[in-house]
Amino acid sequence: MTDYERYKELSKKIADIYHASALLQWDQETYMPPKSAPTRAQQLSTLAGIGHELSVDESFGELISNLVSDDSLSEIEKRNIVQSKKDYDKSLKYTTEFVKEMSETVSAAFQAWQKAKAENNFSLFAPKLEKLVALKRKECELIGYDEHPYDALLDEFEPGAKTSTIETVFENIKPKLISLLDKISGANQNNDSFMFKHYPKDKQWDFGIDLLKQMNYDFDAGRQDISTHPFTTSFSSNDVRVTTRINENDVSEMIWSCIHEGGHGLYEQGLKSSEYGLPSGSYLSLSIHESQSRLWENNVGRSLPYWKKNYPLAQEYFSEQLVGVSAKDFYKGMNVVKSSLIRTSADELTYHFHVMIRFEIEKSLIEGSIEVRDLPTVWNAKYKEYMGITVPNDEQGVLQDIHWSHGSFGYFPTYSLGSFYAAQFFAQAKKEIPELNTKIENGELLPLLNWLRDKIHQHGKTYTSDELCTMVTGETLNSDYFLKYAEEKYGNLYGIK
Amino acid sequence: MTDYERYKELSKKIADIYHASALLQWDQETYMPPKSAPTRAQQLSTLAGIGHELSVDESFGELISNLVSDDSLSEIEKRNIVQSKKDYDKSLKYTTEFVKEMSETVSAAFQAWQKAKAENNFSLFAPKLEKLVALKRKECELIGYDEHPYDALLDEFEPGAKTSTIETVFENIKPKLISLLDKISGANQNNDSFMFKHYPKDKQWDFGIDLLKQMNYDFDAGRQDISTHPFTTSFSSNDVRVTTRINENDVSEMIWSCIHEGGHGLYEQGLKSSEYGLPSGSYLSLSIHESQSRLWENNVGRSLPYWKKNYPLAQEYFSEQLVGVSAKDFYKGMNVVKSSLIRTSADELTYHFHVMIRFEIEKSLIEGSIEVRDLPTVWNAKYKEYMGITVPNDEQGVLQDIHWSHGSFGYFPTYSLGSFYAAQFFAQAKKEIPELNTKIENGELLPLLNWLRDKIHQHGKTYTSDELCTMVTGETLNSDYFLKYAEEKYGNLYGIK
Repeated sequence: MTDYERYKELSKKIADIYHASALLQWDQETYMPPKSAPTRAQQLSTLAGIGHELSVDESFGELISNLVSDDSLSEIEKRNIVQSKKDYDKSLKYTTEFVKEMSETVSAAFQAWQKAKAENNFSLFAPKLEKLVALKRKECELIGYDEHPYDALLDEFEPGAKTSTIETVFENIKPKLISLLDKISGANQNNDSFMFKHYPKDKQWDFGIDLLKQMNYDFDAGRQDISTHPFTTSFSSNDVRVTTRINENDVSEMIWSCIHEGGHGLYEQGLKSSEYGLPSGSYLSLSIHESQSRLWENNVGRSLPYWKKNYPLAQEYFSEQLVGVSAKDFYKGMNVVKSSLIRTSADELTYHFHVMIRFEIEKSLIEGSIEVRDLPTVWNAKYKEYMGITVPNDEQGVLQDIHWSHGSFGYFPTYSLGSFYAAQFFAQAKKEIPELNTKIENGELLPLLNWLRDKIHQHGKTYTSDELCTMVTGETLNSDYFLKYAEEKYGNLYGIK
Repeated sequence: MTDYERYKELSKKIADIYHASALLQWDQETYMPPKSAPTRAQQLSTLAGIGHELSVDESFGELISNLVSDDSLSEIEKRNIVQSKKDYDKSLKYTTEFVKEMSETVSAAFQAWQKAKAENNFSLFAPKLEKLVALKRKECELIGYDEHPYDALLDEFEPGAKTSTIETVFENIKPKLISLLDKISGANQNNDSFMFKHYPKDKQWDFGIDLLKQMNYDFDAGRQDISTHPFTTSFSSNDVRVTTRINENDVSEMIWSCIHEGGHGLYEQGLKSSEYGLPSGSYLSLSIHESQSRLWENNVGRSLPYWKKNYPLAQEYFSEQLVGVSAKDFYKGMNVVKSSLIRTSADELTYHFHVMIRFEIEKSLIEGSIEVRDLPTVWNAKYKEYMGITVPNDEQGVLQDIHWSHGSFGYFPTYSLGSFYAAQFFAQAKKEIPELNTKIENGELLPLLNWLRDKIHQHGKTYTSDELCTMVTGETLNSDYFLKYAEEKYGNLYGIK
């Protein structure tokens, strides 16, 4: 066995442990009986511990170090080693005590958050969150950074991302989005009331499966189940599972979660199974992952051509609910722009204000310019300022979602970056795939999938986001593609010049 | 941390790995998409390897050795240590090369068996089975034995069992069962044709869930799903899952698999969760496990009192199919005695001939008095001799089930032992629980479950089967209880003096 083969074997072994954990987590969210929870948490912790031990094993580190200077490796093999060296060196920065303390703090914070949210009482969460933020600041120091401590946290989700770069992106977007939103609010509003009629669960389920099949999601290498919060998980590119939720009083929740998670799923199914466990067989970053889900959800799924094909299908399932509603009405209804309290139900435009607000708050918390006790006030003020809405209570405000209680600081920006990458990739796809809109109108989505497979999926984590984006589009991330797309689409939708 | 606490920690960690594997296997049989199979096999093999490494770790062995002479331990703690020492010492007898060779041989044998069965061609399986039998003989020598090499294999499933003891049990049973079967075949035959009408899947499912609930199977600590072959699996006593199968043209398959697997499930749910990962929190042996499933299936589920309660429920679900069928007719129909080709669909009496045949063949194979090439001839001759039936082909004969291709030699006898233990335990329960039959007639099954919890489940693997059986019934296994039960029940059913 060569050193590289041994490296592959060990990497596969580590991947096996993490994928086993992923199945335990999938089960936890889908089928696990309630009394199983405490033991499941313990089993997950055991697997995480074993995975971590293998990841930081000295002999694994030596093997990688030896391979760094192995000239016989192919270009892709070399890139795998560089990436694995980076991951290995980063893992070593976490002391066992730190990992243990973080895990216990997150666990306590999560429990406190659940209680605080249920009782609409931020003060129940605040002390645990303070401890968590303090630990996160410590983590920034452990990992190190050049410019801003928050960079160290961004790196976990978007390798190499800088706070300053994200600020620049948002500075470009913000005034133009505000101007567009102003015009929209001054225009005639579109009707979306038919989305909130009663849509029976079984029919929604069947319709969602049809949409996934049309996207060429491979049900022999995946499945869809129901969970409270939709997600995608993968145990190999041959077993990629999505979940959805169904709200009988809002058909759009199922539609967007199916198409969005389906987009994530197609990315994972498109990774090379021969590269299982290696960087070249893994997703690149959360932004790139999100670019795939958002491209299918927004650029395809919220487009008029898509519903030219699929609205007649929707009418077959929901003839009563959609009586007197045309395809164009449906398209307008699903693209209504309206400020709301939470990102997960936001339209394509106001979506980014949720992200900007979170980004600004996280950055301030980590650099220490605001404290945990200030959060409700700061949160509510920003929602008033950017979105013009009054947050009625902390449960729907600062306590709304799980990210902070899970210690996920630095995650939120990838939601916007993903959408901007999506617009840029889709613009390129339109240039390269002849008659893409006509194909979408005919339900022929395979040419688009094959383009994404070829340009993005097959490369795994062989390149950085910047490198990949340049290979695909000729330049690094440029949020003007998103702005152009938004101004054109919403200009038409709202009759704006 | 005391040595005993460290021992508990390590035992829990090993249990976590095995339970994670069990979830991967459960998923494989229930929800896994087909393309996932090869990667899943690899992930399971990684987990098995890690579990094995931890089980034979030297420091774990030293810890156990130290604890053997620790007088401060409680009686149960001492018994845990004795059992763990036995398991540890046994694990050490398996060399890494042997484990690897066995795993590869089983994998190849399983694939060959699937093909051989599909093509009804024993010669495709024979060479792989020969290799497997040779390895099994080698395993007997590695493990060691006092009397017969087959004892070494029995020990894996029924610790301490001897070939000679099982022979004695079967020698007692065989002539008396043959005599009973002769009388039955000379009597008027009962009608079971209504079992084979069309029973819709959904209604069967709901009926099965009702039966499980009535047994007090805890759905907050378990669930039922569909699989090709029904089974029970456990990830802790708070997460015990059963599966069933539904044949729309034979309602009995679902009924027996629900009650049978439910019985296994109740045993696992009754293990002490505080003893997770320790012998005191684990099932005793396969015979005792089977005693629980068979007690619920046969002594409860195939009884008249049980159907006094449940037949009206069956009629609610299946009014059309059961028109003109009385509770007594139903009871008679489900207890029809008839020779058949496979254990899994056998009645309570001929069941044991399937086991005896398998036991005799396995014993001969392991001691070398027959060879793999003789199997089809020997198999068919024994089915003719003991059951009076002609095996039409190897697919339904020697290739019928998975056990040999999985390397499970020594497993089959536990099916009969379990049924005999069931009869003995149930006879004792009748003595100790006032009006048990009346309770069953009223659907009050909790007193029986609580008795089993108290007498059997809560003890886990603290005692041997002999010790437990003596504690519960005052004597070791005595198959006369089964014979008495069978003669009385079938005497009445077939009007035999």
